[in-house]
Amino acid sequence: MSSETARVEAFSDGVFAIAITLLILNVQVPPPSAGHLLAALARHWPTYVAFLLIFAFIGIMWVNHNRLFNHIRRCDNMLMFLNLLLLLGITVVPFPTALLAAHYSTPGRTVAAAVFNGTYVFLAISFNVLWFHVVKRGLLGPETQESANSISRRYAVGPFSYLVCFALSWINVPLSLALNIGLAIFYALPPRTIPKGRTMRSATK
Amino acid sequence: MSSETARVEAFSDGVFAIAITLLILNVQVPPPSAGHLLAALARHWPTYVAFLLIFAFIGIMWVNHNRLFNHIRRCDNMLMFLNLLLLLGITVVPFPTALLAAHYSTPGRTVAAAVFNGTYVFLAISFNVLWFHVVKRGLLGPETQESANSISRRYAVGPFSYLVCFALSWINVPLSLALNIGLAIFYALPPRTIPKGRTMRSATK
Amino acid sequence: MSSETARVEAFSDGVFAIAITLLILNVQVPPPSAGHLLAALARHWPTYVAFLLIFAFIGIMWVNHNRLFNHIRRCDNMLMFLNLLLLLGITVVPFPTALLAAHYSTPGRTVAAAVFNGTYVFLAISFNVLWFHVVKRGLLGPETQESANSISRRYAVGPFSYLVCFALSWINVPLSLALNIGLAIFYALPPRTIPKGRTMRSATK
Amino acid sequence: MSSETARVEAFSDGVFAIAITLLILNVQVPPPSAGHLLAALARHWPTYVAFLLIFAFIGIMWVNHNRLFNHIRRCDNMLMFLNLLLLLGITVVPFPTALLAAHYSTPGRTVAAAVFNGTYVFLAISFNVLWFHVVKRGLLGPETQESANSISRRYAVGPFSYLVCFALSWINVPLSLALNIGLAIFYALPPRTIPKGRTMRSATK
Repeated sequence: MSSETARVEAFSDGVFAIAITLLILNVQVPPPSAGHLLAALARHWPTYVAFLLIFAFIGIMWVNHNRLFNHIRRCDNMLMFLNLLLLLGITVVPFPTALLAAHYSTPGRTVAAAVFNGTYVFLAISFNVLWFHVVKRGLLGPETQESANSISRRYAVGPFSYLVCFALSWINVPLSLALNIGLAIFYALPPRTIPKGRTMRSATK
Repeated sequence: MSSETARVEAFSDGVFAIAITLLILNVQVPPPSAGHLLAALARHWPTYVAFLLIFAFIGIMWVNHNRLFNHIRRCDNMLMFLNLLLLLGITVVPFPTALLAAHYSTPGRTVAAAVFNGTYVFLAISFNVLWFHVVKRGLLGPETQESANSISRRYAVGPFSYLVCFALSWINVPLSLALNIGLAIFYALPPRTIPKGRTMRSATK
Repeated sequence: MSSETARVEAFSDGVFAIAITLLILNVQVPPPSAGHLLAALARHWPTYVAFLLIFAFIGIMWVNHNRLFNHIRRCDNMLMFLNLLLLLGITVVPFPTALLAAHYSTPGRTVAAAVFNGTYVFLAISFNVLWFHVVKRGLLGPETQESANSISRRYAVGPFSYLVCFALSWINVPLSLALNIGLAIFYALPPRTIPKGRTMRSATK
Repeated sequence: MSSETARVEAFSDGVFAIAITLLILNVQVPPPSAGHLLAALARHWPTYVAFLLIFAFIGIMWVNHNRLFNHIRRCDNMLMFLNLLLLLGITVVPFPTALLAAHYSTPGRTVAAAVFNGTYVFLAISFNVLWFHVVKRGLLGPETQESANSISRRYAVGPFSYLVCFALSWINVPLSLALNIGLAIFYALPPRTIPKGRTMRSATK
């Protein structure tokens, strides 16, 4: 963690932590009048799946945010605002997920899925714009060029892939969601190259 | 980040992060009974605009808070309380915005806009009092004099400009809001001089 | 900030930041049907006063927590749990305040004031037990003896004074609240001696 | 706190802090119409006990998380995700507790207690998997071997003991809860060996 980016990272950690924790407020306890408790809990499965899904998605984006900032050594005004744009997407995530959970069995399913997948188009673009700015303005550490290239390649496919998800929502909702989940798994996987600076520092410590 | 101000900054980051993230709790998912989902979402546009507006405003104030504390090297008792006064304004922000969103099409619009603009008068004064204290008591780093003067000049126009906003709310609500948004854009722009201490440290690192 | 206490302080900052920010969720926006907006806002004054009061109280306790941990250099198991006890009091604070606001004009006022003042008896004892443990187990920095004595003296009067508040709630509620506010102002004031270690470090920096 | 694990710890602190503070939102203020206030408060005792219980449980888990990361010097991709799995359990904790509080006097008590105890089976397994990964991949500091062995032994009994709790929920709910509380007390106690690295660093500081 560079001293210049320390507060950007601390503020981002706060936003990620709150976004990921607030989700549980939407998970309602079935009232005693709801009949047999096990059956009542089973009926709520879409809420629980939605909860686990957003937790996983926000978690994966936090890991990616962490990976990016491990490479960033300097901070400028634009980086702060591009990071805010990214955090806007993060705080919004619970809304399209709740929308999709509420409308999954109704005629509104297509629109809800489009809003859901559209949010990830926005997030993929935000990640890329932030990273492009960092690379172009030389805010990276000197030792991380190879690893940064690997990140650039991985991220470049994001906006297009999520646009495919978005288009698919109008054709086949379950397929669009399956692709979205597949992309999340792709971004959860570690990049091939490890940040050299980090490893070297650890080795000499 | 100076070790003396570390906890003030960490606590402030927490408050900013929560204030900016809690907003999404006010954004309601339209129930399935609300008719065509796209139309139902479109009807809620004032809520979404209000959400984006407060997110942008709190984000800009966080960037300014970050800029100020980049210059501050020492902490005293008064700085902690002036910072709390500023954070009071930050935590309050969602309230006047919700008030304005709820009363924008009613006769209460003038009062709601006055409360909204008045909050920013309070915030502009808080920023100035904090900064005035920092400059007067020598809590700045030694290398940042020029950059500090630039901040002083930028901030000095704040309270008066927001007072004009406040007065305008009684005459023309949309105009007062347009000026308020214009001022937010002004404070989002980077100051001309970069904090020298920061740059030097980065250069020698 | 010592590296041993860093996480205790970061966690505490998080709890303080959330406790102080969640308060705004209780401040309701008057609906457009509530008549003239200015009159509707004026009717809600006890809510606004309660909000400002808890904000000030939690803010003052954060400043005191910060002052204590400025002196603490080492961390042990008991310190973590005594700090959790203190944070329990902090997270609870919104409840007795809401209770008092809701019952101030009803026969339940005495009980509500007793619960309110009783919470501060608990908090005053928590602060003292934590500080007593720190002094007794030598978790302080070596240079802070004089300043630590000053804190010990200031804190020693807390539990007894708040017990007087608690007793007064059964006799005269407004008087008990006035004394409580007076004590908050007392603990907001800076201690006479400045932590030497801090000042010396700043001077040599 | 190692620089590699700094953000993992900061993010975790945020999640723990929010989880432990959000609980108070569930504690309702009795309305003035509820009759004598003291009686109304007394009737709500299960809510207050549930609040104190989760606060203590989350607090103890935070202390254990802190103890673990005091030993961890390096971070890898898997550690970030195992930590997220652990945090998933932490954010979930308020749900089974509210479920148990709502169904304790109904026929759903057995199922609620099973869900409650099952959550701790999940948490115990998460703690063990994270720690097993840390030990196996050599992410520990070099001086902490003995202390790490002590932690490994303490944690190894967790999953089995909580499985006994889970099984007991189908036979005797109060007994299963008593054992669960007993286990929490066991994990609150400090481990016998102090992390050597920490102590040595403090001594030489």
